[in-house]
Amino acid sequence: MNPATVPLLEVVRHEPFNAESPSGALQHPLTPLANVYVRTNFGVPELSGPHAIRVHGAVHREMTVSLDTLRAMPQHTVTTTMECAGNDRLGMRPLPVGEPWHHGALSTVSWTGVSLVDVLELVGVLPSAVEVLLTAADAGPRDDAEGTVRFARSLPLADTQRRDTLLALEMNGAPLTPAHGAPVRLAVPGWYGMASVKWVTHVELLQTPYEGYFQRQRYVYDEAGGITPVDRMRVKSIITSPAAGARVDRTVIVTGWAWSGFGSIRRVEVSVDGGDDWQPAVLGKPVSAYAWTPWSVSIEVVRNGRIVLRSRATDASGVTQPDAIVWNRLGYGNNGIRQVVVEVESR
Amino acid sequence: MNPATVPLLEVVRHEPFNAESPSGALQHPLTPLANVYVRTNFGVPELSGPHAIRVHGAVHREMTVSLDTLRAMPQHTVTTTMECAGNDRLGMRPLPVGEPWHHGALSTVSWTGVSLVDVLELVGVLPSAVEVLLTAADAGPRDDAEGTVRFARSLPLADTQRRDTLLALEMNGAPLTPAHGAPVRLAVPGWYGMASVKWVTHVELLQTPYEGYFQRQRYVYDEAGGITPVDRMRVKSIITSPAAGARVDRTVIVTGWAWSGFGSIRRVEVSVDGGDDWQPAVLGKPVSAYAWTPWSVSIEVVRNGRIVLRSRATDASGVTQPDAIVWNRLGYGNNGIRQVVVEVESR
Repeated sequence: MNPATVPLLEVVRHEPFNAESPSGALQHPLTPLANVYVRTNFGVPELSGPHAIRVHGAVHREMTVSLDTLRAMPQHTVTTTMECAGNDRLGMRPLPVGEPWHHGALSTVSWTGVSLVDVLELVGVLPSAVEVLLTAADAGPRDDAEGTVRFARSLPLADTQRRDTLLALEMNGAPLTPAHGAPVRLAVPGWYGMASVKWVTHVELLQTPYEGYFQRQRYVYDEAGGITPVDRMRVKSIITSPAAGARVDRTVIVTGWAWSGFGSIRRVEVSVDGGDDWQPAVLGKPVSAYAWTPWSVSIEVVRNGRIVLRSRATDASGVTQPDAIVWNRLGYGNNGIRQVVVEVESR
Repeated sequence: MNPATVPLLEVVRHEPFNAESPSGALQHPLTPLANVYVRTNFGVPELSGPHAIRVHGAVHREMTVSLDTLRAMPQHTVTTTMECAGNDRLGMRPLPVGEPWHHGALSTVSWTGVSLVDVLELVGVLPSAVEVLLTAADAGPRDDAEGTVRFARSLPLADTQRRDTLLALEMNGAPLTPAHGAPVRLAVPGWYGMASVKWVTHVELLQTPYEGYFQRQRYVYDEAGGITPVDRMRVKSIITSPAAGARVDRTVIVTGWAWSGFGSIRRVEVSVDGGDDWQPAVLGKPVSAYAWTPWSVSIEVVRNGRIVLRSRATDASGVTQPDAIVWNRLGYGNNGIRQVVVEVESR
């Protein structure tokens, strides 16, 4: 494709707007702002008046925290690799219901804002609190629910206690745009994107686990064993070069990224032609503690023709990407090993 | 891609030569000669001297049938859709070993030659015969076998009794080329391509089932339940239009082909977006009794953005294409429902 015709985003759905990062944009350590994937369940909500967040529930003193207050508080910057839980749904058989995400519901973004824990300290969390519920301004009807459903997602209290979970005001150094959750959204390192609630209006301390629609009916692993809310990003790797369909020499330099919500990347291996001869890649320095790790390996191929490149990552918890995930009805968490087919030509 | 740059074949392996039919070539009822897929296990054998076929084994009188004799016998023309058993191997997870065939190890070809049964009548088959073994001129080493392995494949005697199994001398009205099995190859309607043995040198009537390498170690379904030789083509359909990635109107006309080695096509249905709302397609006239059936359907799409088109065929035996096949170690017979992702734009 002519570079001039590469779109900023690959549209998955126009209304509500959902779009992927193009593969070219995922070559960069930090995804350029215009290329960051967009996931919306109900479209961009219209917000009027000065924005503020109501912090309430199991707290010592309920508060309304204005945007001005947030701006006046200490600002932190955290870079995270963020993947939509439905990324790579198109790679699952049978095809699950849901948006047909291919490979690009994935971006690495630098967030700037206030640590959620700083806000929680302002209000004083009661010992009885177990979860923090983030409620968004976007809402709408759903086929499988009554009335209007509002986007809301909870986090275990423990996951809100590190400074790096932010109420973000900026993305890659610029104010958040409406599509990305302006004026304020959550950014949760290590979790699939649904946890990073956009257009936050309420922060509620709960004394029992949240049971709402997006916690129990969507963004859940609906498998034979039962229903479990989706949480951290499963260990995964992608090959960024060579591109699918590329013509390559017999010495193929394969590069890519690997990440996990369960710890740092311990190992990446690459295989040619579907065999079990996995060759170790060299790991680079992670883009941040919560972002992907670059890797590369040079492989000698012994024949000309089409070959299949595959990569698999192992994280610090010892988990390795599987060949194929256990299928789940809603098509989440597909970290199965991908295939990149290229053509080898000796020159 | 500029039409001028579309290759005649998509190379899978240069040595031995294996190559797919390009998707554009599969738009046509009959695959143009230069675009017919090529599958070779050991490369094209060198044949010297006047070619002849030795017919022997459980027969009344063994014979050597020369090419001149074959040319002098009654000629029949049969059009078949022929698919490599490994076609769509790339769609399987985990990726099985074997050539990385994508969608194009598939062609529809018109064969002209002598009915195998006419040759069998010349020699007189003994009542004790149960299979007919076809041996080819190509041979070579294999990693998992000792010495030199020759390509050979057997058919149950019953499957050789219909006039439409040919010792073919011509393809699409032209003499066979070396890559396609010149001077004489078998053409078995309804079976995966491995049965259509190329460069035939021997026809042997067997009194016990053949147990050779390509019957028991390759071209077998190696599954949890055991090992079974691959035989007839599983019911399958492909979407030929729109092409993957095409931008389409809200009224999408979907067309394609369907075929089965187990009978005629009874029904084709198309679904949008992975749902279970299958819409019936209109079937056209099959290209031949042994070739694919054209189908088409017009579908109204209610939204803009990326949609997933899927088609599934049902044959006269009542079998419908599955969402995904039972995985087998060598990656054969993948007739799982395919996905074609297109972009809807209202105009």
